[in-house]
Amino acid sequence: MKKLINDPRAVVDEALAGVALAHPGLLTVHTDPAYIVRADAPVRGKVGLVSGGGSGHEPLHGGFVGHGMLDAAVPGAVFTSPTPDPILDATKAVDGGAGVLHIVKNYTGDVLNFETAADLAEAEDLQVRSVIVNDDVAVKDSLYTAGRRGVAGTVLVEKLAGAAAERGDDLDGVASVAERVIANVRSMGVALTAPTVPHAGEPSFDIGEDEIEIGIGIHGEPGRERVPIEPADGIVDRILVPILDDLPFSSGDRVLLLVNGMGGTPLVELYIAFRRAAQVLEERGIRLERSLVGNYTTSLEMQGFSLTLLRLDDELIELWDAPVQTAALRWGR
Amino acid sequence: MKKLINDPRAVVDEALAGVALAHPGLLTVHTDPAYIVRADAPVRGKVGLVSGGGSGHEPLHGGFVGHGMLDAAVPGAVFTSPTPDPILDATKAVDGGAGVLHIVKNYTGDVLNFETAADLAEAEDLQVRSVIVNDDVAVKDSLYTAGRRGVAGTVLVEKLAGAAAERGDDLDGVASVAERVIANVRSMGVALTAPTVPHAGEPSFDIGEDEIEIGIGIHGEPGRERVPIEPADGIVDRILVPILDDLPFSSGDRVLLLVNGMGGTPLVELYIAFRRAAQVLEERGIRLERSLVGNYTTSLEMQGFSLTLLRLDDELIELWDAPVQTAALRWGR
Repeated sequence: MKKLINDPRAVVDEALAGVALAHPGLLTVHTDPAYIVRADAPVRGKVGLVSGGGSGHEPLHGGFVGHGMLDAAVPGAVFTSPTPDPILDATKAVDGGAGVLHIVKNYTGDVLNFETAADLAEAEDLQVRSVIVNDDVAVKDSLYTAGRRGVAGTVLVEKLAGAAAERGDDLDGVASVAERVIANVRSMGVALTAPTVPHAGEPSFDIGEDEIEIGIGIHGEPGRERVPIEPADGIVDRILVPILDDLPFSSGDRVLLLVNGMGGTPLVELYIAFRRAAQVLEERGIRLERSLVGNYTTSLEMQGFSLTLLRLDDELIELWDAPVQTAALRWGR
Repeated sequence: MKKLINDPRAVVDEALAGVALAHPGLLTVHTDPAYIVRADAPVRGKVGLVSGGGSGHEPLHGGFVGHGMLDAAVPGAVFTSPTPDPILDATKAVDGGAGVLHIVKNYTGDVLNFETAADLAEAEDLQVRSVIVNDDVAVKDSLYTAGRRGVAGTVLVEKLAGAAAERGDDLDGVASVAERVIANVRSMGVALTAPTVPHAGEPSFDIGEDEIEIGIGIHGEPGRERVPIEPADGIVDRILVPILDDLPFSSGDRVLLLVNGMGGTPLVELYIAFRRAAQVLEERGIRLERSLVGNYTTSLEMQGFSLTLLRLDDELIELWDAPVQTAALRWGR
């Protein structure tokens, strides 16, 4: 596996230096400890939103810092939770007096370290609430997780809670939007190949030239089963049906469908998957209201994709359509 | 090489069906012959912009159809020029009475087929002008090209000419903006791996586990040389210096830097490349005014990237900042 890097131990720091140079008006990158905040942080009177986690999933989370989404993102080493220190610093940096919401993917290290940082922040009289994203229906417990893993549904939590904070909701209100998204979002993924962590230098797992892993995690954690590769429509059905049956999503529901590339899958293939998923929704009488297709929660250069389905209501649609200005998600009215 | 597809011959048609389902308010997909137009086409009184080329480079061009950019995109089969028929149909579909500009990447098939379509359109009394994008400094002639190839600089031509058309410039004015961008934009790329065309089933070229191809084309055409892989900073210098020396870009110039992923390169690596390129610009006294980092002109799942540098002036900056609403590039004021 060839990589476009210098020193494997400097990957995250050098990438953060690039982020700082590429987006100077939008965000500020702090070093020692490392975290990214929106350039105008703290925003007085607004609830601050902080997320973070291991690097290697870009644009999650740093690509979602900006107006209408996150106030700060805290990157750990590749596939490694950030420590409490930068989480605490980021929390203080974005506190505009209205409290701070931590959006945490459900991995044991992330949960513990965000919890410690929240305790330390509260000891300094900051008001902090936390939500845990656990949208992956593939497996109950996993390599780094008790309960379900948090995956690409996190992007939707960040967008919708971010829009709620931007319109002026208080901390309870923003947390309640985040909880409502978490309650209504489900995801599952597939891998065709394995990612290679730079300092490891070897693929995270072995997979045969004719096999795919159904229910893969975003750190290469095992899924439900390994099966021979088959046409795309069958692969989509294998992960969409468990998502639909889980909530469950029913006829008449309005949904947002995210087809998320894991890093190495061409866009043309993601649209082929989108086509099949939309057909299945149509057959079940589920109304496709909003769509997102692209690389939003990746696993380095892994070939594969995930589907995320969110049940919408009028308010969530309004929050989705609200303006957002980040490196990876941008739109105006 | 595993692919998320059904029938290799149906890849483009099925992906287009997905595009239609994902972006219904934004664009309309025509079949037999296949082309994509913005949903509100033709826009009365506005110059229409049409581009196109082989598929496999997504989001180029279909991802750039919408307000402030292209009016239509014409996709050929993977790595294959579209025929004159869909180009003619797309041209007629976007003619709002102010004429149509064809933006053509410099590949022999594209140039010939757009030329034929333009002749046929003019025979039906449409006013058509064409510009040829040839930003790749790597090689003079190539596998499918006389002269220099057109690569990721095309995205910038489409954005800036699209903004000029949107503000009401006439056909000569829009063509003149496009020509000014072409005169001031230069690119070069590197491959770490080869792409695999779905119906071929084998990588487009062989490359060793420790080699990279400097000056790669977006269809896997040979570049300048093959060298052993080295740290990212050295690779960036190998393609940035020829770009800088070609125009040349000089101290005091203001520029837009696009670090373009070829498909399979993680975003974290693109930002490492961005960091080095920005350092070199700084050393040379060149002012980085605007940035774009991500997968914009790809070669299926190929690992690699290209750098594109555009010399800016006040008007080009204003056109860059103008609102755009497409599937792959979106921002408001």
